[in-house]
Amino acid sequence: MNQRLSGRFITVEGTEGVGKSTNIEYLCSLLDAQGIEVVLTREPGGTPLAEELRELLLAPREETVSEDTELLLMFAARAQHLENVIKPALGRGAWVVSDRFTDATFAYQGGGRGVNVDHIQALETIVQHGLQPDLTLLLDLDVETGLKRASKRSEPDRFEREKLDFFEKVRSTYLQRASAEPERFAVIDAGRSIPDVQSQISEALIHFLDGHHD
Amino acid sequence: MNQRLSGRFITVEGTEGVGKSTNIEYLCSLLDAQGIEVVLTREPGGTPLAEELRELLLAPREETVSEDTELLLMFAARAQHLENVIKPALGRGAWVVSDRFTDATFAYQGGGRGVNVDHIQALETIVQHGLQPDLTLLLDLDVETGLKRASKRSEPDRFEREKLDFFEKVRSTYLQRASAEPERFAVIDAGRSIPDVQSQISEALIHFLDGHHD
Repeated sequence: MNQRLSGRFITVEGTEGVGKSTNIEYLCSLLDAQGIEVVLTREPGGTPLAEELRELLLAPREETVSEDTELLLMFAARAQHLENVIKPALGRGAWVVSDRFTDATFAYQGGGRGVNVDHIQALETIVQHGLQPDLTLLLDLDVETGLKRASKRSEPDRFEREKLDFFEKVRSTYLQRASAEPERFAVIDAGRSIPDVQSQISEALIHFLDGHHD
Repeated sequence: MNQRLSGRFITVEGTEGVGKSTNIEYLCSLLDAQGIEVVLTREPGGTPLAEELRELLLAPREETVSEDTELLLMFAARAQHLENVIKPALGRGAWVVSDRFTDATFAYQGGGRGVNVDHIQALETIVQHGLQPDLTLLLDLDVETGLKRASKRSEPDRFEREKLDFFEKVRSTYLQRASAEPERFAVIDAGRSIPDVQSQISEALIHFLDGHHD
């Protein structure tokens, strides 16, 4: 919980093709219906500088990008996003919905690429100063189905071109984190029909609202 | 010392206007005269991606850049520089001369801006994996003289516009680091005549070469 900030911070996580965009839209409509001011944002990105860093990160390039570089750029963008978007919004009582946050770094860089998890934790400490999401919706789907959905959508970027077993590791890291922090995570089975997925999201939100009366 | 790498790593540090460029040129000519292959590089920068990050860092922009963001971008550029330029050069026996390195981060971000030094140290550990310069030439000059020299040169960038007392803190941090690590640092009095400064650099190099026979 973020005691000194009056808004709530919700993150939405998942591998490629789980339907994050559609379901985030649905989540925001639910919050909107409750009269809550919602700030919708995404990572990496969320501020002009952080979006420039996102471009740098996702662009295919000849120069090999070292694991350390990628990790530090992710957290540089995150620091900017936190200071200039997330904290000011929470501070004025708005709710923030972020398409990905630090769980994605643990899943993609830590689980997927095998980056030293101690390094990710050290950076999390430096950048977040204790701030954590109040609720994380993990949209879970088997990797092959997700990748098929994602590839229909647009040209694959550098991350999407990675191999299937990379995404298997990403998915299992997400699931491990969810079971280690059941209070914060709601795991949504994204393989079901749209109405079913929406009903799972709606229930997770009701449960969260019930537990967090001010 | 970098036991597994056969080249030597020399960094040149100092505040604005101390004559880094001229003196680095002189240092490289001395090494060249010894038949040593020299790779000359600079920070932030040194690789295409790191140079892009340098541009991002130095460009004046409307968006406030948080201290954490600046620090992480510095180390992201450094990670890239180390993996793609410095380590490969040292590995094949070349000597690397870098216009600034991590001491500059401790001096500018730590001493100047008051960024948490523990954070800088944590990032140094993550990125450098124990690699340190073998020799650091600190060109020392009183701040006011240096700034007058620097302002004649070109339009001041974002860092150069900072106030005088900022640079006083930067200088004193550099000097503290030099006295804490006298084996690694050679402090050069950059306020003297060019021949005198060159002779100090030459002596520092002779002393270093004497102490480092392979």
